[in-house]
Amino acid sequence: MKQNFAIAIHGGAGTILRSSMTIALQQQYEKGLRDALDAGYAILEQGGSSLDAVETAVTILEDCPLFNAGRGSVFNHIGGHEMDAAIMDGRNMAAGAVAGVRSIKNPVKLAKAVMQHSGHVMLFGNGAEDFAKTQRIEFADDAYFFNQSRYQQLQEALMEGIVQMDHSDKKFGTVGAVALDASGNLAASTSTGGMTNKQFGRVGDSPIIGAGTYANNDTCAISCTGHGELFIRAVVAHDISCLMEYKDLSLQVACDILVYDKLIKIGGEGGLIAIDKAGNIYMPFNSDGMYRAFKKSDGTGEIKIYKD
Amino acid sequence: MKQNFAIAIHGGAGTILRSSMTIALQQQYEKGLRDALDAGYAILEQGGSSLDAVETAVTILEDCPLFNAGRGSVFNHIGGHEMDAAIMDGRNMAAGAVAGVRSIKNPVKLAKAVMQHSGHVMLFGNGAEDFAKTQRIEFADDAYFFNQSRYQQLQEALMEGIVQMDHSDKKFGTVGAVALDASGNLAASTSTGGMTNKQFGRVGDSPIIGAGTYANNDTCAISCTGHGELFIRAVVAHDISCLMEYKDLSLQVACDILVYDKLIKIGGEGGLIAIDKAGNIYMPFNSDGMYRAFKKSDGTGEIKIYKD
Repeated sequence: MKQNFAIAIHGGAGTILRSSMTIALQQQYEKGLRDALDAGYAILEQGGSSLDAVETAVTILEDCPLFNAGRGSVFNHIGGHEMDAAIMDGRNMAAGAVAGVRSIKNPVKLAKAVMQHSGHVMLFGNGAEDFAKTQRIEFADDAYFFNQSRYQQLQEALMEGIVQMDHSDKKFGTVGAVALDASGNLAASTSTGGMTNKQFGRVGDSPIIGAGTYANNDTCAISCTGHGELFIRAVVAHDISCLMEYKDLSLQVACDILVYDKLIKIGGEGGLIAIDKAGNIYMPFNSDGMYRAFKKSDGTGEIKIYKD
Repeated sequence: MKQNFAIAIHGGAGTILRSSMTIALQQQYEKGLRDALDAGYAILEQGGSSLDAVETAVTILEDCPLFNAGRGSVFNHIGGHEMDAAIMDGRNMAAGAVAGVRSIKNPVKLAKAVMQHSGHVMLFGNGAEDFAKTQRIEFADDAYFFNQSRYQQLQEALMEGIVQMDHSDKKFGTVGAVALDASGNLAASTSTGGMTNKQFGRVGDSPIIGAGTYANNDTCAISCTGHGELFIRAVVAHDISCLMEYKDLSLQVACDILVYDKLIKIGGEGGLIAIDKAGNIYMPFNSDGMYRAFKKSDGTGEIKIYKD
């Protein structure tokens, strides 16, 4: 029997109101998700690795100005962009992550370089950028990251003195991908542009291995999006893996315990995408919506934003 | 029945050779450990919280130039000091962490302020220092952190082009504390000065919630010391908690699985200190030695460096 393969991606969770969404904008979001999904799926179809598939899908989401990661990253307090990303290979549980990097076109590529070439798992700030220069990682200038609507968000946030998760409505801007390849290997990746008006070099759950990103061939691959502080405290991604490994729970039951019980109890709004070693995909969220999509080698797939 | 209480601390694991240890130096290490242990224990004895006890013990270890944390932090590649620390309250799983902070006298105090006053869990670099200024956190100048033998280590490392874990021999310089208070609350804290000749803003496991530091009243409190990259990939501290919660294993059995099996398989040298909700303490390590000590309300206690 041919081993099946599959990929799932997300573009962030939160309050996504139909009333503030036009048909044209919704189509743009769906196109952004489809482009990333198809590119990641194509790699799996050609026998490529889940690691390359999630990297490619996240790269395309980072390149799309609609999502809060890479090019579409929101402005921090001082009008700059500080991005976080992580990637993990379920085959050997190798991992790479960067936090608070600026001027990096694709933070996911830098996270992968950290994993493969730094001897470390996590690098931050200037140091991570210095490492990037040794790795032919592409830099981009401020103009590349500039976006009028994001800039407007910062001005409003500065005026109101608040830290916004992403848009004016509460949206946890993150992108991510999880995949199973035809060799049976799982991988996960997450990337974020942080919070509008973010101060103090805050690091969320995205680059924290075990919290926002985790992959283990024995269990699952997970990428989270939500109120990062709560996801860190609950060690969400690793907890799902442990519930599967130690309690023999299914992917769906394990994810439900986190998303609809443990996170709810501590006020942790958000969601996640998950895939297990059999290729089952589950994409639960306790917020109003989550940009999400999946595609499997059995021909099934979907692209969705709202609950129904 | 009066609830028992207890505290355990460590000052790093690794290759600690008797041949390069003088009696006088060993006595200094033991005094450093005893001072921290007694101060933390005194807080528990007076009915104080485990959170305050671990903060106090780690503060004293940070103030002791012998240990690689706070004042005794090693020099990074450019001759500065970049420190990481974390603290977690098992009562509500609140957590605070800082990575890559400079000129902070006691990084553990800053981590606690992040937990209590920032609305975030993790801050890094300049941003964390800016936050410190808003919190009456004490800063210290380069002279405070200067230590001739540490400086010598950097010169040797620069000459040889290597990154040293701590001393010339392989030692994972970290300090940490775990405690159970008379109210039944667990807490954990870890602090480190990183690696000699460290480049690229590397972050180890110490400030990663779930990896080097974790506390949960339902299970245990853990502080790790070792080859941080492997401890991050194995999500060590949280994995021990999950083995206890989901497989009903004892603290000792759960710790043994991590330290003597999972970590060994991926080449993860180091150790950890652990305490459970009953006040059982376990301090396993797969390296040659680990600076460690504990004290319990039943009158037992010890201060040790080597295996026997």
